[in-house]
Amino acid sequence: MSIFSKIIAGEIPSYKIAENDKFYAFLDIFPLVKGHTLVVPKIEIDKIFDLPEDYLSELLVFSKPIAAAIEKVIPCKRVGLSVIGLEVPHAHLHLLPISDMQDTNFTQKKLQLEASEMEEIQKKIVDALGK
Amino acid sequence: MSIFSKIIAGEIPSYKIAENDKFYAFLDIFPLVKGHTLVVPKIEIDKIFDLPEDYLSELLVFSKPIAAAIEKVIPCKRVGLSVIGLEVPHAHLHLLPISDMQDTNFTQKKLQLEASEMEEIQKKIVDALGK
Repeated sequence: MSIFSKIIAGEIPSYKIAENDKFYAFLDIFPLVKGHTLVVPKIEIDKIFDLPEDYLSELLVFSKPIAAAIEKVIPCKRVGLSVIGLEVPHAHLHLLPISDMQDTNFTQKKLQLEASEMEEIQKKIVDALGK
Repeated sequence: MSIFSKIIAGEIPSYKIAENDKFYAFLDIFPLVKGHTLVVPKIEIDKIFDLPEDYLSELLVFSKPIAAAIEKVIPCKRVGLSVIGLEVPHAHLHLLPISDMQDTNFTQKKLQLEASEMEEIQKKIVDALGK
């Protein structure tokens, strides 16, 4: 069971943003930027393009309102996205509120935020999503 | 008319990989890695999540066989993807054959390949796509 499957199953806590029958979205605990969110399919497939076609076609549609909520409450120019997949063997989409190219650079040092700040970011995004 | 719309219209030449009624895929002429491919919607929308829902749902499905062809002919661990959008105001998906995290870093210097090498990469991917 991947660490993401454990998060989806609730065995590991997460700063949940949204979920439906196919996907689970939560804050990355090692964010590149504040508001960095992961969208993970609820099936454990390593490579993004090996997902069944209905997952592939619904991934960005599911992510759209989340990206809009992030863009509304996190200072940024826009929300970018990225799938790399060299680390956890469970496909996941990064949603990144970016202001410049450096914000998309996964080789830079990750942020370490206090739990209170993560909760505050989570609340802002979830509130914006509910509106 | 964006530079991508001019490429799609054939006004600017490109190393075309594939197209359908909604998308056009071609080699990035400033690649991060060999085989770096752009997938561009045939409508000129700046932000990826502002695309109409049918474009959002078909983007990854259209990209899947292209990614598989790239992965088959370009040495890499897998094909990652990225949407940044800070440069050309016409949404585009980067398909990146990656071997390590540095291959995904858009702040690094781009490759400059000879036309002959671009043509060779194009041919390999298009051939793999046709099989």
